[in-house]
Amino acid sequence: MASEPPASPRGDRRPHIVIVGAGFGGLAVVHGLRAAAVDITLVDRQNHHVFQPLLYQVATAGLSPADIAGPIRSIVKHQHNVLVLLDEVIGVEPDAKTVRLKSGDFLRYDTLVLATGARHSYFGSDHWAQFAPGIKTIDDATRVRRTILLALEAAETKRAKTDAAQVERVTFVVIGGGPTGVEMAGAVAELTRHAAAMEFVYLTPDCVRILLIEAGDRVLAGFPPDLSRAAALALADLGVEVRLGARVTGIDANGVSLGDEAIPAAAVIWAAGVQASPAGAWIGAPTDRAGRLQVAGDLTAPGRPDIFVIGDTVTLTGAKGRPIPGIAPAAKQEGAYVAKAIAARLRGRRRRRPFAYRDYGTLATIGRRRAVIDFGWLHLSGLAAWLIWSTAHVYFLVGFRNRLLVGMTWLWNYVTFERGARLITGLGDASPAEHTAPPPP
Amino acid sequence: MASEPPASPRGDRRPHIVIVGAGFGGLAVVHGLRAAAVDITLVDRQNHHVFQPLLYQVATAGLSPADIAGPIRSIVKHQHNVLVLLDEVIGVEPDAKTVRLKSGDFLRYDTLVLATGARHSYFGSDHWAQFAPGIKTIDDATRVRRTILLALEAAETKRAKTDAAQVERVTFVVIGGGPTGVEMAGAVAELTRHAAAMEFVYLTPDCVRILLIEAGDRVLAGFPPDLSRAAALALADLGVEVRLGARVTGIDANGVSLGDEAIPAAAVIWAAGVQASPAGAWIGAPTDRAGRLQVAGDLTAPGRPDIFVIGDTVTLTGAKGRPIPGIAPAAKQEGAYVAKAIAARLRGRRRRRPFAYRDYGTLATIGRRRAVIDFGWLHLSGLAAWLIWSTAHVYFLVGFRNRLLVGMTWLWNYVTFERGARLITGLGDASPAEHTAPPPP
Repeated sequence: MASEPPASPRGDRRPHIVIVGAGFGGLAVVHGLRAAAVDITLVDRQNHHVFQPLLYQVATAGLSPADIAGPIRSIVKHQHNVLVLLDEVIGVEPDAKTVRLKSGDFLRYDTLVLATGARHSYFGSDHWAQFAPGIKTIDDATRVRRTILLALEAAETKRAKTDAAQVERVTFVVIGGGPTGVEMAGAVAELTRHAAAMEFVYLTPDCVRILLIEAGDRVLAGFPPDLSRAAALALADLGVEVRLGARVTGIDANGVSLGDEAIPAAAVIWAAGVQASPAGAWIGAPTDRAGRLQVAGDLTAPGRPDIFVIGDTVTLTGAKGRPIPGIAPAAKQEGAYVAKAIAARLRGRRRRRPFAYRDYGTLATIGRRRAVIDFGWLHLSGLAAWLIWSTAHVYFLVGFRNRLLVGMTWLWNYVTFERGARLITGLGDASPAEHTAPPPP
Repeated sequence: MASEPPASPRGDRRPHIVIVGAGFGGLAVVHGLRAAAVDITLVDRQNHHVFQPLLYQVATAGLSPADIAGPIRSIVKHQHNVLVLLDEVIGVEPDAKTVRLKSGDFLRYDTLVLATGARHSYFGSDHWAQFAPGIKTIDDATRVRRTILLALEAAETKRAKTDAAQVERVTFVVIGGGPTGVEMAGAVAELTRHAAAMEFVYLTPDCVRILLIEAGDRVLAGFPPDLSRAAALALADLGVEVRLGARVTGIDANGVSLGDEAIPAAAVIWAAGVQASPAGAWIGAPTDRAGRLQVAGDLTAPGRPDIFVIGDTVTLTGAKGRPIPGIAPAAKQEGAYVAKAIAARLRGRRRRRPFAYRDYGTLATIGRRRAVIDFGWLHLSGLAAWLIWSTAHVYFLVGFRNRLLVGMTWLWNYVTFERGARLITGLGDASPAEHTAPPPP
């Protein structure tokens, strides 16, 4: 059922900026327009912003959902030109300047910002999704956490009633050797081996196997080769087996196939690829294979000066022809740029300088005391890199959670290896196969 | 598929104590047997112990699940005579001394402790459950949290596109005026009114209505009348409308019926009654109307000296003929008694003194600065009672979470009214009706 867009609570008519997506990009636009004489409607299908770089910590029970996610309303509550709507965009009519919502309503905009991010891509094998979940939302992360913890429980039960020597190792497979896959594999190794050592009777660290599968010839292919080597060494130290040049040909309830080789697995986690949100399809713009839109230098959609598209849903080329990575700092910078562009237009000026990405370095962490950082002019690995990584992440977590608490939780987890977040929730929603111990062999 | 019970990892044969349920009662038995020459198998269908007295705080977004729940394995990890099994008991064969598990396995026991707690009771109207969830588990609490928060979101959306004056108030109904209902109603009032005041554009505190429905003639009927009056005043202060002598005759997606009166409600929360676990049925023992077993003075089941039953699943009479309340301290004391009884038997002694409940007082809290406490010899209400209540609860939260962190979270929440836990999770699992804004009238 259609209805008029929300009128300004003030009753006057100011330019209406509709921002879709409250990730790093969308929030940066909102923040950048905090003093602008506009009415902003911020639409997201979740009620919370997620600090995505730490989602893998929720999936591996290092942090709780509330540690890395905050209600969008709470984040923008001091900014009085924002209306937050919990709804899902299902289409855009660029000529009518209208956004269609799943609730049946629509919103008219003067300027539209699409910051709708990306989901996993299974490269055409979407049926793999049920067996190899990826991690993009809090619910994804708690689901993966449940799968990992249940696999350990099932392994303990199995060993309790069988001669342990006859039971194969419980195997966790992470697919994709990019930063997400490397971080997941490291964290899974630490979680499972520590738990096996400390909290199970029959399950020991030797019973656990972690495999990282990468189709290319090195992990962290986006990093310089020396950091790839450092990451591979750190993974080996944590007991992660890295399989390079391995192409996944099948995933089912039993595990993963690499051509003729079948790898039985208790849990498979997908970190191999992403697919942009359908923003390109909404506005009829061409996209690349990953669904990402090619935007103009000012981040507007082709031929649509009133539609900006930012974040993981676009493909952009930065300095030296290198693609701008799909990471939080890039989305934030793009969001800040768009806010300035909108504000400049309001003042009658046309901002001409195209967006320029400022690269502050890229990071990946492997377990609790190693990371790699590529500053361009400096490559860092080991404990020093980990300290920089953790400081940076605690620092940027600000806003929806105070630094002190998260810092203390981390310190506490680090010192005690206590993982208070190790809860299996949503058991009622799990399929029976998921939470029943396998029958004895 | 049946299999032998887990053998002791040591290979020797020691008395096998099977404890079902890792609530306060079950864990107290485990703890009490920490030095006993027994093998304990602790079975729970969840992997975590829940600090139930604070579940309502999770449901109202004051605390996160991990703040009040901890993995059972983590809690007992230093006690080497315990095997933890994630499984569900579906029956007991007392003559064969066997417990049947949902996974298809069974466990043989020498001594069995049933500490399986209670669920909600809808007094024969089980179809109300879907419309009026109660709160006994973490998943219950996050589901109620989702329902409350989504109701606020829907109300904002509705007001954004309609003349607000024409929209009825968003109504939350809590059914049951015992401690749980009073705590819920107070917390819902604070959450919704604060959120409406601070974080919504169209929704204001005046738009929210909270109703507490109680069939009896006062709230907190288990407390002395002066404390009931104090609680009623505190509720009124928070803007909760208390309806006494009101009997619920129907609950559906639209709201609650009290005889001829229909009360439309955005969310209904059930706190009116509990039904004990089917422990009585499992062992063929008679139960009262609430399904609770009448145990002997030594907490054994009738005619079954090798089966102890404790906690919310039994009915017991204490000093002065007053029933022992279904609260955490009672379950803990019963668990400690059973552990001593088992240890005494191992030493060939028969413990004769029956269980005696030591009443340290009962508490209920109403919002963020009021509580009532009945010490028997002293009745306390107001801020002083609240301070005692919060100190006691933070103190007893120890073990699965360190006191300092929870204390700080509370202090932080108290000072800032920041509710970082205010996440709507599991949206994918919600029914469409639940997360779609209602169509405009």
